[in-house]
Amino acid sequence: MSNPLFDLQHDHLQHLQNAYAEKLAREGFDSLAIYSGHADAFFADDHAPAFQSYGHFMHWVGMADIQRSWVIITPGQKPALLLHAPNDFWHLTTVLPDEPWVEAFDITLCPEPPLPQMTGRAAAIGDIERLSDEQRQALGAEAMPEGLIKALDELRMTKTDYEVACLREANRLAMAGHHAAKAAFIGASAELDIQLAYLGASRQRESKVPYQNIIGLNGHAGVLHYQHYDLTSPPQRHSLLVDAGHRFRGYCSDITRTHVGPDAPETFAALVVAMHGLKDELVRAIAPGVDYLALHDTMHRRLADILVSFDLYLDSAESAVEQGVTRAFCPHGLGHSLGLQVHDVAGLRTPEGEPKPAPAQHPALRLTRTFAPGMVVTIEPGLYFIPMLLAPLKERGVAINWPRVDALINCGGIRIEDNVLVTESGFENLTP
Amino acid sequence: MSNPLFDLQHDHLQHLQNAYAEKLAREGFDSLAIYSGHADAFFADDHAPAFQSYGHFMHWVGMADIQRSWVIITPGQKPALLLHAPNDFWHLTTVLPDEPWVEAFDITLCPEPPLPQMTGRAAAIGDIERLSDEQRQALGAEAMPEGLIKALDELRMTKTDYEVACLREANRLAMAGHHAAKAAFIGASAELDIQLAYLGASRQRESKVPYQNIIGLNGHAGVLHYQHYDLTSPPQRHSLLVDAGHRFRGYCSDITRTHVGPDAPETFAALVVAMHGLKDELVRAIAPGVDYLALHDTMHRRLADILVSFDLYLDSAESAVEQGVTRAFCPHGLGHSLGLQVHDVAGLRTPEGEPKPAPAQHPALRLTRTFAPGMVVTIEPGLYFIPMLLAPLKERGVAINWPRVDALINCGGIRIEDNVLVTESGFENLTP
Repeated sequence: MSNPLFDLQHDHLQHLQNAYAEKLAREGFDSLAIYSGHADAFFADDHAPAFQSYGHFMHWVGMADIQRSWVIITPGQKPALLLHAPNDFWHLTTVLPDEPWVEAFDITLCPEPPLPQMTGRAAAIGDIERLSDEQRQALGAEAMPEGLIKALDELRMTKTDYEVACLREANRLAMAGHHAAKAAFIGASAELDIQLAYLGASRQRESKVPYQNIIGLNGHAGVLHYQHYDLTSPPQRHSLLVDAGHRFRGYCSDITRTHVGPDAPETFAALVVAMHGLKDELVRAIAPGVDYLALHDTMHRRLADILVSFDLYLDSAESAVEQGVTRAFCPHGLGHSLGLQVHDVAGLRTPEGEPKPAPAQHPALRLTRTFAPGMVVTIEPGLYFIPMLLAPLKERGVAINWPRVDALINCGGIRIEDNVLVTESGFENLTP
Repeated sequence: MSNPLFDLQHDHLQHLQNAYAEKLAREGFDSLAIYSGHADAFFADDHAPAFQSYGHFMHWVGMADIQRSWVIITPGQKPALLLHAPNDFWHLTTVLPDEPWVEAFDITLCPEPPLPQMTGRAAAIGDIERLSDEQRQALGAEAMPEGLIKALDELRMTKTDYEVACLREANRLAMAGHHAAKAAFIGASAELDIQLAYLGASRQRESKVPYQNIIGLNGHAGVLHYQHYDLTSPPQRHSLLVDAGHRFRGYCSDITRTHVGPDAPETFAALVVAMHGLKDELVRAIAPGVDYLALHDTMHRRLADILVSFDLYLDSAESAVEQGVTRAFCPHGLGHSLGLQVHDVAGLRTPEGEPKPAPAQHPALRLTRTFAPGMVVTIEPGLYFIPMLLAPLKERGVAINWPRVDALINCGGIRIEDNVLVTESGFENLTP
């Protein structure tokens, strides 16, 4: 069963073995227990919500819905996987895929939820606060040691070739969904039906997507994390914003497209073209050594140019940035790190693990690092018409062309988002 | 805006007012705070799973996804609703529907998560363990008093006319989904596509269904709580089991149908007909005073008759029950109470609130009560071919006609489930 992906995964696991051994030694640990986590039932009920395994657990075992299981890392030994697999006729028993990576682990199938008993100086990471006091005692490990967590987070910032291959495939599958969503929009479907079309084409159920798909028609395109799917189709169709991904072997894509409806003003269609251009320009600027914050500033300067050239702002582009006009039209950051979690870990740290918070003017920024080869980030410039954010500009008498802006309110907004790998020489856009 | 449902809801809220006043007085409380609960993000992540509000909160406010909000009951006063509604451009703000029930509450929209400060002798119920120590202190209420919880659970066992109307509508909407699922099965769809067809026709997203829909093709029909949706269609289609509901204004339907595929043996089609007949017979036996346990025993006796008459069991029907053969073919209970939760509260208690557990032979039974008017229950006889449960019968040399049973293994099993109201004179089947 030779397969390029499995070969890459073999190397990925070897890389993890070496890196974990080095980091455990540096932090003075003999071994490490990584808990998958688990979902509890809703309060006073017997149904549990959907679950997502702990990121560092997925780093080894690329399955995002494993619960009550452990990976044990002891340098010099095969990693151990204690997999909870109850003998249970109520549910389909957890089975491991018939894939070569399984050979890299010492695997124990556990009918009861397992609990490792560590020896020597051991660390334990994951949501172990939810184990009982007795269980934590029996585990015999130091919980969530800060230095080790920082080092393991940092390890996730640079993707292996296997991880990049998974992210590329997650992008390919998400695009199938985006095409179907666009078709459903042309067919005048309601948000729920656009969502179901996306899921059908990208072959996912809602509880397995890496983050809740945003399917916003008209004004809903301007609600940044719009969380509903309307059941009925609106009489007029100005716009559709689809922010939706896919999870492949644990790895997430996160892609946004904005579509123009038959009832949108021509300006909106032209703005969507301009925002595609801006996204492409920002992607092309990616290279090792480039600062993400500087690129975020570039986005704001180019947004200011767009506002001026479209006659939406009646003063200079410089003043649009200075006066916070572009921040009102785009209150979110340029993007974030992407991997086993959609907003992947360590985005607001230095490579040494020190905090590097978002600047005060851009509090929503999730990434403040300098690009280095192996990083995968989203580039997602946006331009929105959000009444709650425009009102203060009106009060301040900012030089907005209000009739032109008001004519776009029903379109909600625009976001175009790709997923990009930083390479040695520049970048590779993973979004087809 | 006169509307029969809203009139019924008015009476429902009046009924709750009176009943709560009486129960609070009997337990010696001046007032009660009911917490909706809330969802926390996944561990070390910034995304949260789907949420279901606390049942007793939904009893007043029939919205199943309200978080970080409170209902305050003080006898003699309007109930108060402290609704968390942040001023947040990231999400669509929570708004209450334009419906008359809103007038029955004193409503405060709270930009920050509210925390009531109770006076007098107050009780607080809901998932308040997850508030901070300081918050629980400030609340100034006795948490989860057992006597009051029992009394409020008991109140949920008897449905008001409003609740019955909601359950009826939840049934109607679910049946639209069941028809679409059947059509998708005839069209040879995969489990995922059958699920999406169900959701589209019943107008729901996966995270809003009252319990995870079970969509099991072939052998998966024999996994009682089968939890996946396969992405590909199997080459042969023996059977489809769909166990899926709908939530309407908080109230849940829970309906199961089993469909026969073109590749099933004729015996299986005849068995499905027989199980429909058994379901009808059990429904017709419902009346006030009838014991649910006795009806559960009837199900087993009739299952034994079916096993004998279909030549699946080669001894007497009596011996099939005595030897536990029917329990191997149907390991679950006859059904459960249904309401704001799918497995509704107080099923294993007496009307006085005392525990009345399932008998040792039928540990999975979720309801042990005697029927009384206003109860809504599921009736869900099943007949499965579960290798894990059949193997011990084979070892024991039980008189099973193994060639005939083995020929049915690929069909998984059969479950037929309706939702039934107990009336003064007998029953009303809410499933159309």
